[in-house]
Amino acid sequence: LKLNIIIAESALELIPDELGSLPAVVNDSKRRSVEPARILLDRSIHHAAMRRLKDRFKRGRPDLVHITLLSITSTPLYLNGFVKVYIHTYDDMVLEIKETTRPPKNYFRFRSLIEKLLFEKVNNDLIKVYIASLSELLEMIRPDLIIGLSMQGEYENLENLVKKIITKKNPAILIGGFAHGHFLPNTLKVLDELIGIDEMPLDAHVVAARLVYELERRIRK
Amino acid sequence: LKLNIIIAESALELIPDELGSLPAVVNDSKRRSVEPARILLDRSIHHAAMRRLKDRFKRGRPDLVHITLLSITSTPLYLNGFVKVYIHTYDDMVLEIKETTRPPKNYFRFRSLIEKLLFEKVNNDLIKVYIASLSELLEMIRPDLIIGLSMQGEYENLENLVKKIITKKNPAILIGGFAHGHFLPNTLKVLDELIGIDEMPLDAHVVAARLVYELERRIRK
Repeated sequence: LKLNIIIAESALELIPDELGSLPAVVNDSKRRSVEPARILLDRSIHHAAMRRLKDRFKRGRPDLVHITLLSITSTPLYLNGFVKVYIHTYDDMVLEIKETTRPPKNYFRFRSLIEKLLFEKVNNDLIKVYIASLSELLEMIRPDLIIGLSMQGEYENLENLVKKIITKKNPAILIGGFAHGHFLPNTLKVLDELIGIDEMPLDAHVVAARLVYELERRIRK
Repeated sequence: LKLNIIIAESALELIPDELGSLPAVVNDSKRRSVEPARILLDRSIHHAAMRRLKDRFKRGRPDLVHITLLSITSTPLYLNGFVKVYIHTYDDMVLEIKETTRPPKNYFRFRSLIEKLLFEKVNNDLIKVYIASLSELLEMIRPDLIIGLSMQGEYENLENLVKKIITKKNPAILIGGFAHGHFLPNTLKVLDELIGIDEMPLDAHVVAARLVYELERRIRK
């Protein structure tokens, strides 16, 4: 079994050109001495500049993506090579993380790394970066089961979900890498199933941590 | 049941006076226009200045404490009021977080908040701050069971641990809020039990997420 976790439609992108001349962005760019096109869009810093941005509630939360990533990559299941993580972004970039790689826990280091990768689009040994829509990414992975996790899905408890996964060789689970809103129609189209694992809305990092733990427990038994 | 989670001996403190004049600290202080005594010690920024610091491997990891806190406070169990979190620091400060309070997910905001609290030592409605050793803190909480989680403890799986907790009214679980090393002898002394929940060393945030999830599952059943 290799579980592919796709952090999908992630709120992780460089500042779009259209915001480059707005004050919140210009100030941040000066403060950091970095041009806007090399800076991660971050609601906590660029809030004022995002007011008219399309889908603004689904964008500019690199902090969430970071925590979600760590909640997967710090686990024995991941460190033993059973999980592969892909970060798919709102603007259809993919960061493919080599199995067992540990991304930086420190947010500043994570930010520098991701800014470099997204801007230069140059792979390193541990993280590949390329342009791909979700359906293109899934064509490459060729999963034998594709499940999206969302409040909008039918409720199924995590234990049963994991029983379903564990009979597969190369399943993919999509977790939304954003704070508000739901998967886009184009994402829903590529799924075999849409499942909700709790009656309460859960943060992506909580979903990811619980999924990995539940699978790990079953594999180790 | 109210579960008290104590993130103990946390690598969270303001820059100690003795480092105030070292170049890595002075530079950061200038860059931020903030005096060193108001800045959180952070290995990723102040590494060079920490070389001769006592217990340096257990200090200066506010990022870890932040992620550990979020792994607890984003869960239904916490949001429904079953968990109270205390951050006890390396230098014996305590941040007592009011039940169901959601701390900032963004690291910058977390940092500003904690720097203000630790420097001004002024409580706000949601977080109390005071000086207390672990044993003083435990005297205030008066738990009916005190368990420390550590690789050095005897192995017990998390399900069994939770069965033990759930019969209590006011148990306390200590999780080390540091990246390397173990609990101090003074900490071990105050414990009823020292338990290890995995054969692999686990990051504090993974331990916290799993503990809360396992308890939540049992309470909801």
